[in-house]
Amino acid sequence: MVKQARAARTREALVRSAAEIFDRDGFSVASLTAISSLAGVSNGALHFHFASKAALADAVEEEALTRLLGVADAELPPGASRVQFLVDVTFGLTRALSSDVVLRAGFGLSGEACRHRRVDLYGRWYEWVEEAVRQAEAAGELRPEVSAQGVVTSVVAATVGFETLGARDASWLSGAAVNRFWSLLFPALVPADLLADLEAGGTGSLSR
Amino acid sequence: MVKQARAARTREALVRSAAEIFDRDGFSVASLTAISSLAGVSNGALHFHFASKAALADAVEEEALTRLLGVADAELPPGASRVQFLVDVTFGLTRALSSDVVLRAGFGLSGEACRHRRVDLYGRWYEWVEEAVRQAEAAGELRPEVSAQGVVTSVVAATVGFETLGARDASWLSGAAVNRFWSLLFPALVPADLLADLEAGGTGSLSR
Repeated sequence: MVKQARAARTREALVRSAAEIFDRDGFSVASLTAISSLAGVSNGALHFHFASKAALADAVEEEALTRLLGVADAELPPGASRVQFLVDVTFGLTRALSSDVVLRAGFGLSGEACRHRRVDLYGRWYEWVEEAVRQAEAAGELRPEVSAQGVVTSVVAATVGFETLGARDASWLSGAAVNRFWSLLFPALVPADLLADLEAGGTGSLSR
Repeated sequence: MVKQARAARTREALVRSAAEIFDRDGFSVASLTAISSLAGVSNGALHFHFASKAALADAVEEEALTRLLGVADAELPPGASRVQFLVDVTFGLTRALSSDVVLRAGFGLSGEACRHRRVDLYGRWYEWVEEAVRQAEAAGELRPEVSAQGVVTSVVAATVGFETLGARDASWLSGAAVNRFWSLLFPALVPADLLADLEAGGTGSLSR
């Protein structure tokens, strides 16, 4: 049991170190020696856990998906606004992208050319947004003339843009940019009687 | 003169081939031999024009900037809508990203970690959008309660998102996604009396 716990800790340290090195150098340049030495383990230990750099990248993306789902997976109290929940999750995601190197590296790997991937982070994020928007529509929180598909497209494109731009300039993930996006969108998105109840800056109920 | 023209043609072929290989393999993996052989020139000829892979990447980004400015640089007839111009340029950009490998590779290189760059494509695009929005505001084409900064943030984030998502799934660059984004945004963006004159699908006046 002690051995198993140690193996799990080593694996975790390797995934975290791989994320740091992928985030800094990109997948192609990242060296396995840099990853094992940052994790404080031997090359042999690395190869015991991961057969290849691609296997490490898969593990980083899987862990990033777990963290993405952690940000987006919350029980809503009855009567809570579905649109506000969507807003809060976009804040949770950008906050997590700026503070969590595993999530950031996972999204970065998803943007790399030429890798066969087991985990489709962008696709999973798209599906999550689609379901959140569907629920907002079913709850009557979208203006009748609004196309749900248009909301999904805009929210996914903008958040992926924040992620891409944030990889080079962290101010895109600061929250101010996300706030400006929602402030602009709200009057087109929700009926007038809902506007006053919504916080374009997020309610901070998630992922603090 | 004949020699100079041939040298210019060779250089052009190398930049185009480099864009194809960077777009396919990413900067780090791209091989100079693959680039010279796609261009139909010797490795020696490549090295005569470009001292390094980084120099080739700089040249691709510079050529991509020229093409970006080509899409965005148009004389507006007096009385033309500034918002419509911004919309049309976003369509021109996504259309060019899907058809022009040099522009696509340039944006791809701009997203790569760990390169010192001479050309900042994202930054130049941001500045262009900022100026276009400023002019739309000055022309009274934005609703008074709209923050110009919010429009710049949203348009830049969404277009960069289309570019990032489009690198893996071309449907994001098809025009339908851009159309949905503008259709959603228009009612929040422009005064009611301008709405009827605007085409969320673009007027097709640019870059056909």
